[in-house]
Amino acid sequence: MKDLNLNKRSIPPVTINRLCLYHRCLEKITEQKDSLFSPYISSSEISHLTGINPAQIRKDLAYFGEFGLRGIGYPARELQLELKKILGLDKVWSVIIVGAGNLGSALLGYEGFKRRGFLIKAIFDRDRSKIGRRIHNLRISSIDKMEEFIKEEHIDIGILVVPAESAQEVANIMVKSGIKAIINFAPLRLSLPPEIKVNNVDLSIEFEGLTYHLKMC
Amino acid sequence: MKDLNLNKRSIPPVTINRLCLYHRCLEKITEQKDSLFSPYISSSEISHLTGINPAQIRKDLAYFGEFGLRGIGYPARELQLELKKILGLDKVWSVIIVGAGNLGSALLGYEGFKRRGFLIKAIFDRDRSKIGRRIHNLRISSIDKMEEFIKEEHIDIGILVVPAESAQEVANIMVKSGIKAIINFAPLRLSLPPEIKVNNVDLSIEFEGLTYHLKMC
Repeated sequence: MKDLNLNKRSIPPVTINRLCLYHRCLEKITEQKDSLFSPYISSSEISHLTGINPAQIRKDLAYFGEFGLRGIGYPARELQLELKKILGLDKVWSVIIVGAGNLGSALLGYEGFKRRGFLIKAIFDRDRSKIGRRIHNLRISSIDKMEEFIKEEHIDIGILVVPAESAQEVANIMVKSGIKAIINFAPLRLSLPPEIKVNNVDLSIEFEGLTYHLKMC
Repeated sequence: MKDLNLNKRSIPPVTINRLCLYHRCLEKITEQKDSLFSPYISSSEISHLTGINPAQIRKDLAYFGEFGLRGIGYPARELQLELKKILGLDKVWSVIIVGAGNLGSALLGYEGFKRRGFLIKAIFDRDRSKIGRRIHNLRISSIDKMEEFIKEEHIDIGILVVPAESAQEVANIMVKSGIKAIINFAPLRLSLPPEIKVNNVDLSIEFEGLTYHLKMC
């Protein structure tokens, strides 16, 4: 497989979303080693699993060099590892959580994050009655310490789990302190500089597809 | 627009996933009424927003009747409402949560669910010290009452937020009592009859796309 040598040319966000989908699907497949009798996967198999058109898949993957072998497919494991690298999922990232309510506490204890290289370095709250309390082996810090902490610890990602009315203010401090990416659980659209990447989380997406199935029962 | 009259022919899950994507994207667009100077949207605009190939979009939507007008596009609002109906998102669904820890409690208070027609009717736990306590105006019930409750209240969807070691057992009771769809937050694959629809939640997906962006900063 050719070395990718991607440099810093930017890929459109919509392509990145598809690469994430391919990566997730390949990861699942390569984990189920027993059921994988061929180490290769075709674009039509990836299409079947992701819902993306095979021609689109071939186009997306060709963009990064010559991955596949005509008539055989893509080497699943190598392709997964390359996508992981392209997407920056092979690195360790420093994360903070702001908001030590139920959801913030649950996210702090969520096992999947560490396994994927997302290390939660601190949790902040404004509520004095919470500050100093330990949850999942971390002490809740005062939000007044957040700015300094982000700068000193070079935090990459902020998870925002505060009420809607304080979300914009907290996000502004995050950005001012150097955070470049935010996962926003607060139910509002943040207004931030365009270079800041925000993922707005809507947990009701977890219901998606279920209700169609229920209608048919 | 033609009446759909879908009957009970089943659509492949992968198509349903794409319909969910189109619906979510149309919902966003039709909510931002000010920025919408045309009430029509083309397949290439939907493609740009969802990452799905325009030919695939036209094929998916044609499956349900003649939605679009050649050269003009699809009437965004009508299409959104039709997809909502197809996906069963125009109805009210009864939901229970099992597991009254941080995540279960956070989900119980999550505002987005009710707004989308997902009514949480009860929350169950095994822990005697929790049973009877009130969170978000619901009393935590003993898991021993779950089976009867599901049957009597005709619960549609169960949200599983228990530790991995008890998830399969709780899921079995849910299914035995008549639940047809499960949202599984426990970190394991459940083994259930094929007619039961399960969405396995992986919250680390919320980090997706962010790390590519951080790599480029």
